[in-house]
Amino acid sequence: MRELTVDLGERSYPIYIGQGLLDQAASYFQKHNIGNKSPLLIIADSNVAPRYLAKLEQVLQAGGYKTASAVVPAGESSKSLAMLGDLVGKALDAGLDRKSAIVALGGGVVGDLAGFVAASYMRGIKFVQVPTTILAHDSSVGGKVAVNHPQAKNIIGAFHQPEFVLYDLNTLQTLPPRDVSSGLSEVVKHGLIWDASFVDWCEANAEKLLALDPDSLGYALYKGCSVKAAVVSEDEKEMGLRAILNLGHTIGHAIEAVAGYNEMQHGEAISIGMIGSAKLGLRYGAPEEVYTKTKRVLAKCGLPVSLPKHYDVDAIMAAMMHDKKFKEGTMVFVVPTAIGKVEIKSDVSVEWMKEIVEELKLEAEQI
Amino acid sequence: MRELTVDLGERSYPIYIGQGLLDQAASYFQKHNIGNKSPLLIIADSNVAPRYLAKLEQVLQAGGYKTASAVVPAGESSKSLAMLGDLVGKALDAGLDRKSAIVALGGGVVGDLAGFVAASYMRGIKFVQVPTTILAHDSSVGGKVAVNHPQAKNIIGAFHQPEFVLYDLNTLQTLPPRDVSSGLSEVVKHGLIWDASFVDWCEANAEKLLALDPDSLGYALYKGCSVKAAVVSEDEKEMGLRAILNLGHTIGHAIEAVAGYNEMQHGEAISIGMIGSAKLGLRYGAPEEVYTKTKRVLAKCGLPVSLPKHYDVDAIMAAMMHDKKFKEGTMVFVVPTAIGKVEIKSDVSVEWMKEIVEELKLEAEQI
Repeated sequence: MRELTVDLGERSYPIYIGQGLLDQAASYFQKHNIGNKSPLLIIADSNVAPRYLAKLEQVLQAGGYKTASAVVPAGESSKSLAMLGDLVGKALDAGLDRKSAIVALGGGVVGDLAGFVAASYMRGIKFVQVPTTILAHDSSVGGKVAVNHPQAKNIIGAFHQPEFVLYDLNTLQTLPPRDVSSGLSEVVKHGLIWDASFVDWCEANAEKLLALDPDSLGYALYKGCSVKAAVVSEDEKEMGLRAILNLGHTIGHAIEAVAGYNEMQHGEAISIGMIGSAKLGLRYGAPEEVYTKTKRVLAKCGLPVSLPKHYDVDAIMAAMMHDKKFKEGTMVFVVPTAIGKVEIKSDVSVEWMKEIVEELKLEAEQI
Repeated sequence: MRELTVDLGERSYPIYIGQGLLDQAASYFQKHNIGNKSPLLIIADSNVAPRYLAKLEQVLQAGGYKTASAVVPAGESSKSLAMLGDLVGKALDAGLDRKSAIVALGGGVVGDLAGFVAASYMRGIKFVQVPTTILAHDSSVGGKVAVNHPQAKNIIGAFHQPEFVLYDLNTLQTLPPRDVSSGLSEVVKHGLIWDASFVDWCEANAEKLLALDPDSLGYALYKGCSVKAAVVSEDEKEMGLRAILNLGHTIGHAIEAVAGYNEMQHGEAISIGMIGSAKLGLRYGAPEEVYTKTKRVLAKCGLPVSLPKHYDVDAIMAAMMHDKKFKEGTMVFVVPTAIGKVEIKSDVSVEWMKEIVEELKLEAEQI
């Protein structure tokens, strides 16, 4: 079992990573002073609920907790104000009070949604995260919770830190291969922005990770969470440093916006975005290795490293111009200067970016 | 001009109270480092907007600010998740970013709603309150913002402190007499829980207050805000002391729940509730003066001090049992032990409360 602390002063919390932690859930709740007089509400999605909800409820009830549960449809569309209202209704029906906790059982969507329920119900109650995807290691650190508005993603939310995060590696064993790779994309990103030796490790252990070897996975999640925790500890409310976590995300979000439904997963789009960022790094004078190594490690993790031919460059550029990181003529980008090191550049020209997106597409044609 | 500080560490903020402050709004925004590159969104209700919205926009624009505005229907029904979604849409349309501020122009409903928009838009942006009612002095201190759920009032919200509060006494000159009295109810409450000499002052100056004498009003708001600020500074997140602010509110909320539409204003219901609390105080051994003086000062402010005949005691008791302050058999009440002093009693029997509600009604029959 590995443990790390997200250091945020009085809002600090631990992340536990290990096999079989779900079976010991009740003792972790007790350890973190979550009383059993007030009911808990577990929120899961329609994919995860059939696998782990009954088990988690059973374990908690055996530990003396009263639990209620709510299952939301899998997918981003559940992150809505309407769903927030439904879940608050469920919390009221179940009698949740100010000493209750909301438990997020699932991936990033459930974490964001359940976290915002916890942040706003009675102006904020306790929150526990039980992630069941690799990608969720990213959202389990930092307390960013939110729902979407029809006009913008994650625009209605809060910073609300969990009491603790319980990462049971066994729940990752049933992940589809595409979700595994997609999750590894953010793991590798944490290496690329902060820790060159961890990038080496990812490259050397990619096969074990894809095979869901528990010890390798545990280490990768531990390191990924540790980097994010280090960044977030210095900048909880996203005033500066935290921006480096957006490596690959401006291009990635634009690709996601242009992609058809289920055509591109978040981690896949970010992978292509990180290749684009590496290309941008070369233009700012970074050594060739920044590009070659970035490409090699992402490819080894089963991720796309070029833009599929049918994507329209102009459409991607238009989506990028709408991104909130675009400011007055030039664009702000997180740019790698070496493996494990990035800088924020605020003078990236739109022309350069267009050339890079074209290159990303050309490489696909060459394959 | 009077000024006081709500002392909350790095979230401290000032309240400015005086005549004609609206005309100087832009300089206050500048003083508080609200930049003019990002647009502001002013939220007002349909009663207040025709009187003061154009003026505030004009003053801010003359000071170099870009402003957008949104007008919501007057009344509690605007405090909904649907309205939150609409207002976030307006904020997006107007291009509000993380350096923008939301401005609440109006009474408590607009303050609560606009405050929650500010708390959740992009996970929290700046918030400025420009109260236009006496009652809003109460909600302008403490940062409690929220919207309602069909099943419960104020259940979805946050603690989000404003940058500053700009209280222009001139905007109170158009208040209907009933709103004046209703607002004074919370002013008197702040005396009853904390400051006996201020209760004396309210009694001596009730006529001036009802006549909207600016200097008396300014002093009353200054004192009311000061008491609340002192309480909130010690207990920002409502863990203990802040409960004393609920004097009269358990009975008051029950009366509001049972009353027909527009039959009972919040301050009126709280006034009757505070009479009930004083009666409860007598049962706990408080001197007779606690009851007689409470009744006298509230009556002088034009407030009801007994329960109108047509109210059903059982319906009020049922509403009270649903109140969140009711716990396992006995009820928790804020009970005056002297003028300017209260205690929390958690062992109040349901029978006692029923007797007191009956007495409140009997007194009305005797008049």
